[in-house]
Amino acid sequence: MTQPTACVLIIGNEILSGKTQDTNLQFLGFELAKLGIRLEEARVVRDIPDAIVKALNECRAKYTYVFTTGGIGPTHDDITIECVAQAFGVPLELNETIVEMMKRSGRPINEARLKMARIPRGAALVENSASLPGFRIDNVFVFAGIPSIMRAMFVGAVPMLFKGTPILSASVDAYLREGDFAQALEELQRRHPDVEIGSYPFNRDGKLGAALVVRGTDRALLGRVIDEIVAIITALGGETKRS
Amino acid sequence: MTQPTACVLIIGNEILSGKTQDTNLQFLGFELAKLGIRLEEARVVRDIPDAIVKALNECRAKYTYVFTTGGIGPTHDDITIECVAQAFGVPLELNETIVEMMKRSGRPINEARLKMARIPRGAALVENSASLPGFRIDNVFVFAGIPSIMRAMFVGAVPMLFKGTPILSASVDAYLREGDFAQALEELQRRHPDVEIGSYPFNRDGKLGAALVVRGTDRALLGRVIDEIVAIITALGGETKRS
Repeated sequence: MTQPTACVLIIGNEILSGKTQDTNLQFLGFELAKLGIRLEEARVVRDIPDAIVKALNECRAKYTYVFTTGGIGPTHDDITIECVAQAFGVPLELNETIVEMMKRSGRPINEARLKMARIPRGAALVENSASLPGFRIDNVFVFAGIPSIMRAMFVGAVPMLFKGTPILSASVDAYLREGDFAQALEELQRRHPDVEIGSYPFNRDGKLGAALVVRGTDRALLGRVIDEIVAIITALGGETKRS
Repeated sequence: MTQPTACVLIIGNEILSGKTQDTNLQFLGFELAKLGIRLEEARVVRDIPDAIVKALNECRAKYTYVFTTGGIGPTHDDITIECVAQAFGVPLELNETIVEMMKRSGRPINEARLKMARIPRGAALVENSASLPGFRIDNVFVFAGIPSIMRAMFVGAVPMLFKGTPILSASVDAYLREGDFAQALEELQRRHPDVEIGSYPFNRDGKLGAALVVRGTDRALLGRVIDEIVAIITALGGETKRS
């Protein structure tokens, strides 16, 4: 079975200026793996129409899904929705469901707020427990940038996604320098092409080592590869700690 | 004066799988702004040669500088250096300065470690206080993924960069909903095309509001725009707090 793929398109000057630390990418990568959807790429672009439209059109042609975050509020720097419409070549249309939700909120409906009720023709709402809906158009999901709202929108979108075989991971910490075990690890990776072995060095309280992570869809195989890693590190004189 | 531009290329499955929270992008965005270099884009790609080479070639043609992070260690999943060489169409060459540094470390030199001493022909070392050097080739800087080492490499690279006019920012917190002030803020942005005004909503202990951030190169102008924002929010009945 082919796994669905995904790209995250993070929209917002605040991420590139260093003002805001993005945390949505990590959340989406983690959750998509559980659904068997492989996150292949992420891009961060500024609030510039051409940059957004071009990145969106490139990515939606390339991956099963694109998830955008950010830029769907009422202020002048929120331009994601109109850029999505432009990328698909469709007009924006006032969505009565969203207008009704706004009315129920009791806050005054003004031109700025109505901007959030205009979505591209053909889009389906992604209702959620946290805010006004996000939406899906074709293979593109348009989410908020605020993490709590983005997460609620993702939960709302899950039933709309084709799933793959969940991508599992197992890991063990090895207290050796990477240069000491790199060759043996490469041989191990060669013997197990169906898993992906990653080595992520760390320095914990002055103790150098690496987290060795095995990813794949077969839980039993992950366990066997971890056992082999433990044997390799132990034979090289290193301690290991299963995590 | 035209400001130099930059792109950050984050290389590593661990960022896309959700295993690791990237923090290098925020650091680079913040530091580059201080140097007057505008970070225009970031991409995160997996440890796949084609993906890395293609992204690197696209981005280095488009921006003044590209900074890559990750994938320069000794293990099999560290493939950034060979991909950079491939993108530039140059061979890897053993760098004697790095070999000497390795010898001085006292650790055994093996094939895996020597991988870290082979850099693309024509590259210049970026020496630093934390580790073996990173390197620069043409407009591309190749840095480690471990944040402490990446930061040290950036410090080593600063003297090699063309600077622009520092991009400054000022901000004020407004305790109103974005929909209440969006129209007035848009008019303000229109009157001040030389600054970039961003609105970033927050919910702090149940109090809703937005951080209003003004960015530009003229400190006096930033101050005047912040004053105007305070006047706007106050006239709409909202509290403000300078930050």
